[in-house]
Amino acid sequence: MLAEIITIGDELLIGQVVDTNSAFIAKQLNKIGVSVYQITSIQDDKQHILQALEDAENRVDIIICTGGLGPTKDDITKKTIAEYFNDILVKNDAVLENIEHIWKQHIRTKLLQVNKDQALIPSKSKPLMNKLGTAPGMWIEKGDKVFISLPGVPYEMKALIEYQVVPQLKDKYNFPFILHKTMIVYGLGESALADRIEAWEDALPKHIKLAYLPNLGKMRLRLSTKGFDEVKLRQEVQDQIDKVIPLIEEEYAGLEDEEGSVEVVIAKQLTKLGSTLAIAESCTGGAVAERFTSHSGASAFFKGGLVTYATESKINVLNISKADIDAHSVVSSQVVEAMAKNAQQLFQSDYAVATTGNAGPTKGDSDAEVGTVHIAIANNNDVYSQEFNFGNSRLKVIQKAVNKALEMLQKEIFKN
Amino acid sequence: MLAEIITIGDELLIGQVVDTNSAFIAKQLNKIGVSVYQITSIQDDKQHILQALEDAENRVDIIICTGGLGPTKDDITKKTIAEYFNDILVKNDAVLENIEHIWKQHIRTKLLQVNKDQALIPSKSKPLMNKLGTAPGMWIEKGDKVFISLPGVPYEMKALIEYQVVPQLKDKYNFPFILHKTMIVYGLGESALADRIEAWEDALPKHIKLAYLPNLGKMRLRLSTKGFDEVKLRQEVQDQIDKVIPLIEEEYAGLEDEEGSVEVVIAKQLTKLGSTLAIAESCTGGAVAERFTSHSGASAFFKGGLVTYATESKINVLNISKADIDAHSVVSSQVVEAMAKNAQQLFQSDYAVATTGNAGPTKGDSDAEVGTVHIAIANNNDVYSQEFNFGNSRLKVIQKAVNKALEMLQKEIFKN
Repeated sequence: MLAEIITIGDELLIGQVVDTNSAFIAKQLNKIGVSVYQITSIQDDKQHILQALEDAENRVDIIICTGGLGPTKDDITKKTIAEYFNDILVKNDAVLENIEHIWKQHIRTKLLQVNKDQALIPSKSKPLMNKLGTAPGMWIEKGDKVFISLPGVPYEMKALIEYQVVPQLKDKYNFPFILHKTMIVYGLGESALADRIEAWEDALPKHIKLAYLPNLGKMRLRLSTKGFDEVKLRQEVQDQIDKVIPLIEEEYAGLEDEEGSVEVVIAKQLTKLGSTLAIAESCTGGAVAERFTSHSGASAFFKGGLVTYATESKINVLNISKADIDAHSVVSSQVVEAMAKNAQQLFQSDYAVATTGNAGPTKGDSDAEVGTVHIAIANNNDVYSQEFNFGNSRLKVIQKAVNKALEMLQKEIFKN
Repeated sequence: MLAEIITIGDELLIGQVVDTNSAFIAKQLNKIGVSVYQITSIQDDKQHILQALEDAENRVDIIICTGGLGPTKDDITKKTIAEYFNDILVKNDAVLENIEHIWKQHIRTKLLQVNKDQALIPSKSKPLMNKLGTAPGMWIEKGDKVFISLPGVPYEMKALIEYQVVPQLKDKYNFPFILHKTMIVYGLGESALADRIEAWEDALPKHIKLAYLPNLGKMRLRLSTKGFDEVKLRQEVQDQIDKVIPLIEEEYAGLEDEEGSVEVVIAKQLTKLGSTLAIAESCTGGAVAERFTSHSGASAFFKGGLVTYATESKINVLNISKADIDAHSVVSSQVVEAMAKNAQQLFQSDYAVATTGNAGPTKGDSDAEVGTVHIAIANNNDVYSQEFNFGNSRLKVIQKAVNKALEMLQKEIFKN
């Protein structure tokens, strides 16, 4: 069963907004066995929307559109969909009731006709109730195919996908099981890794697909398959993972959590151990802390973090000795280890991770080359650090430093 | 002149990676007068790539593909492009030299045949030298149309767009000027805002397009136009802005910087004033600091930040009095104002912003309802705070709190 996601909005095509909706929808569809064949981003333009719907109908079975459902004049998705189905818009009482309820609860301005008009939906459609906003989702069937239209506001779209679209798709179709398993590999480039595992790759069964995902400082190796026998598929993929690990023993850093990211793996392990974490950041400027606190449950292990960006803050707030800084510079193993140790003490945590470096583009408070980063890990007995050079692109340096800090922390907490 | 961006990679279609490349490319193209008609994300599949190229050629003049140029077997873009043009791959000596140079400088493993093969490009193409990686970009002309293929690794793609694609497109074509101006409006919903400015909107000249961009807690109102007379277009758009501001006097919070975001506006103003900033975060967990430090030049004004996630960290690190916490709870105006004041003292900054709240999904170290957030601003004379409820979706609460903190800070520093 194939799907296409159509995201509608000029803001996507002028680069004002990054399309994060598609990745979310694709992930949720994959979980229930629907493969996304294509993602298409188009303008708020009638002819363009009509053409995209027709093209998608020729390619796939399930079409999910987002965007263009607001009450203002630049939003034209709903009436264009009605036109596509030779349909008219009719008032839906349940939707109107929902709009009036939202207004009463949350909004102080007057309920306008344009807001009430959001209760107009194509007569052939079934509304998908949006409890978080006034634009309803819509579900229209045409033969075996389903067209779904959702608002583009991410949290409204997410709730509709989770509570309405996914359950209703599962009711209507019998989907296969899709499995992705991603191995994290550090310290080997794409081609060196491919060379190392070539014989294994060539012997992979046809229905298991391999992908290399290089990302600053780490590689992800993804195995994907689909079919109706979940137990068998899981076993087959696990067998392949067991075969490849011995070939990359040194560089293998574990499986990516099915939900995603390294920080989730670390969070789970710290919570399991009952251990706590503190973070002291200079060049990464809060980005390491943000990786942890964007997930719920962080308060179980995360004591707190410091962003000591200015040298004087390192001295005054984190109690780094001025003599050390003068002797070794702020970008040094001595300073980063003191940052980790002092953060650990300050926050009374079991572990601490610290970063200091020069992300560029110009040299900061030290003579260190642009791209130089020191990262330290403190545990209850010890503190140690490593020096890196991450090149001369600012965002790349920051991202690589965050990845490397998480990698070092992951290795540390899985040591025991 | 219209363009289409085709991003190639299974990782996009399973939701493993968010497509940030398209927004970057679209923004750069807009700056030189190229409108992006469509963005299409497709699989690493030969037939699919061939079809997408053909469809795009029928729609637009400039086609930019990213992804699928790596040295491993799952990357098939290059040979598929050769097939599309009935072409063969030939070795390009300059590209090979670049690959060997990168290898010598940065990579310790052996240079393999698959890496050398990255110097093979379609005979009809001109290479776009990639100084940051081994996959060259490619430029192929067919009649009046241009096909450009770039690696998907963001920092390699970005450098190629900036230093090769944009200058060469400007050489080849005579583009119009595209202008977007975005006004930031706080405290009015989409329909209430549209109602307020309806007469103005209806009187807008046909060639100036208006878009409403709702985002948690703030609205953006974008005016877009294009043509060959830059001075006249700028004046016309400015005239419209001058007309609408009196209608939204209370809620208008300034123009978004042409480069993007509120934090850039704040950064510029602080740098101009020679003033400094400190940040103390609880529920936003480093996200406010990260917004500032992801841009270069932050060290000119940003003294540092604290993430005091655990209550004991607020007491031990930020010297919040335990009595205050016991009396008012950690989520209170008293505590958030003390956080801002103490951060300002600790980091010796002119301004400080602080957040404390409960982002959910469960209640934390206080009895505050999920979604309750207090935000404080300290300046050299005063400290004040506001209480908000941002709903019950964790990421929404965090994002809204960050937006609101930036809004309050922006108002504060533009007060004088």
